[in-house]
Amino acid sequence: MNKESISSEFQLLQDRICGALEKIDGKSYFLEDAWDREEGGGGRTRIIQNGKIIEKGGVAFSKVFGDVSEIMRTQLGLKGNDFFATGVSIVLHPESPHIPIIHMNVRYFELNTGEYWFGGGIDLTPHYIKPEQAKQFHKALKKVCDTYHLDFYPKFKLWADDYFFIPHREETRGIGGIFFDHLNEACGLSKLQIFNFCIDLGDLFYKVYAYQVECGKDIDTTAQQIQWRNLRRGRYVEFNLVNDRGTKFGLLSGGRTESILMSLPANASWAYNYLPDLNSEESKTQQSLIKGVDWIY
Amino acid sequence: MNKESISSEFQLLQDRICGALEKIDGKSYFLEDAWDREEGGGGRTRIIQNGKIIEKGGVAFSKVFGDVSEIMRTQLGLKGNDFFATGVSIVLHPESPHIPIIHMNVRYFELNTGEYWFGGGIDLTPHYIKPEQAKQFHKALKKVCDTYHLDFYPKFKLWADDYFFIPHREETRGIGGIFFDHLNEACGLSKLQIFNFCIDLGDLFYKVYAYQVECGKDIDTTAQQIQWRNLRRGRYVEFNLVNDRGTKFGLLSGGRTESILMSLPANASWAYNYLPDLNSEESKTQQSLIKGVDWIY
Repeated sequence: MNKESISSEFQLLQDRICGALEKIDGKSYFLEDAWDREEGGGGRTRIIQNGKIIEKGGVAFSKVFGDVSEIMRTQLGLKGNDFFATGVSIVLHPESPHIPIIHMNVRYFELNTGEYWFGGGIDLTPHYIKPEQAKQFHKALKKVCDTYHLDFYPKFKLWADDYFFIPHREETRGIGGIFFDHLNEACGLSKLQIFNFCIDLGDLFYKVYAYQVECGKDIDTTAQQIQWRNLRRGRYVEFNLVNDRGTKFGLLSGGRTESILMSLPANASWAYNYLPDLNSEESKTQQSLIKGVDWIY
Repeated sequence: MNKESISSEFQLLQDRICGALEKIDGKSYFLEDAWDREEGGGGRTRIIQNGKIIEKGGVAFSKVFGDVSEIMRTQLGLKGNDFFATGVSIVLHPESPHIPIIHMNVRYFELNTGEYWFGGGIDLTPHYIKPEQAKQFHKALKKVCDTYHLDFYPKFKLWADDYFFIPHREETRGIGGIFFDHLNEACGLSKLQIFNFCIDLGDLFYKVYAYQVECGKDIDTTAQQIQWRNLRRGRYVEFNLVNDRGTKFGLLSGGRTESILMSLPANASWAYNYLPDLNSEESKTQQSLIKGVDWIY
């Protein structure tokens, strides 16, 4: 499994994901922006907008390589001279407040020192948390994790709780999922096995999302629910712009802004000191945005 | 001019500003949240929402003091043990795309080492740049600056161009204004004179804004102009959450989130790779969002 074949497989994964999402949406389709990076490599950013299900979403593939820059050295602590990075990254903002926002990414990193690792994650941000749907989501993640290593789900679920957290709001971004980084042979699996784990996660992503869409797509929507959806999107924007290390590093290091910020919703709202009504559905969701919830049992 | 009297004067400035803005708005009024800071001090955050002119805005006063924390030492490079900080900070998001977003802040900082300084700034973010209005704004700022020091306007205007800049978009936040920091007797003025300069800026703020409101308030608005306003607000959110040092430091250091993020608009939009039509008003504004424009001549 060399870097070129990993990258090619990630491209094929992007194709499968876009195909599946177009079927799920049933109306809109992805438009592709292919771009080159001056210092080496490039990507294919695919965007879907104004769909029946997906209001705004992106599925990005990239493969970039070249000199390790000063900012990579200081911010990522990289030690080699040349790097190679490839990955697939997704954020979908649905139109309906009854369908969750979803994020997935898998990535591979290699240095000319011979060091390599995989990273990735999936997390779900329901505007309204439904325990049954949260359970299904986490069960599906656990199942794929367990196939590879029994430590993966408990470890990566905790990691997601910590990563997808908004400190200044003291709330999680949603119901979490899994997050992992710097995964290599030290975990006990071969490089090929870790790669297969990433691909399996990528192919799981659109299956679990199809279920979430099915649960919410026929539910009627009130103006109040739309307002709540927009406020939740505001928190999503805060997390991505203030807390997400990938976004911050991308913008700081001169990455392609439009590809990085494809994760932002078509619109988002803020209200000063907004407090949902006591015992409302909004309030129940707000109270569930905490770390350490066991969504499966 | 000791710290307590500076703080009291800043409170009175907040009162004058809120009174003037309520007159300008003509419909809505400010609601106050008074808050205490556990480690010392507190503030009065005043919010106006759903006005005739101002859709969402805040005028915040704060006076905080206590131990210099680890994060202040590393992020602000502070050397003393005790600090005292007081200031007034404003962001207004008008409803009409023909009225600019405006920001102003003046602040005073003191350490138990005896070191002190003033900082502040005003900048204007028109959704549609009108050269005549931009000129009036900068002329008014220059006039106040010139009263105190002939170096102030040229120096602080350049500083604003550099500060109110969004690197990942390669565009300024708007038409700039003035920005200054670490201003003390080293500039040749007495502490009282610098204080008076800050107060004069605060009292200039609502006068220049009244003019901007007058110019735009009766202009009809199209759906396209609202969409453009929301996209410009999206850039404002990006600047505040990614680039603004005050916001970042506030959130990192455990400041009051709702007071810090009162600067965010009621709603904002993002569209992938949005490009305004050639020769449109939107395109003209986009092309003027560059550093180094001499708006006065």
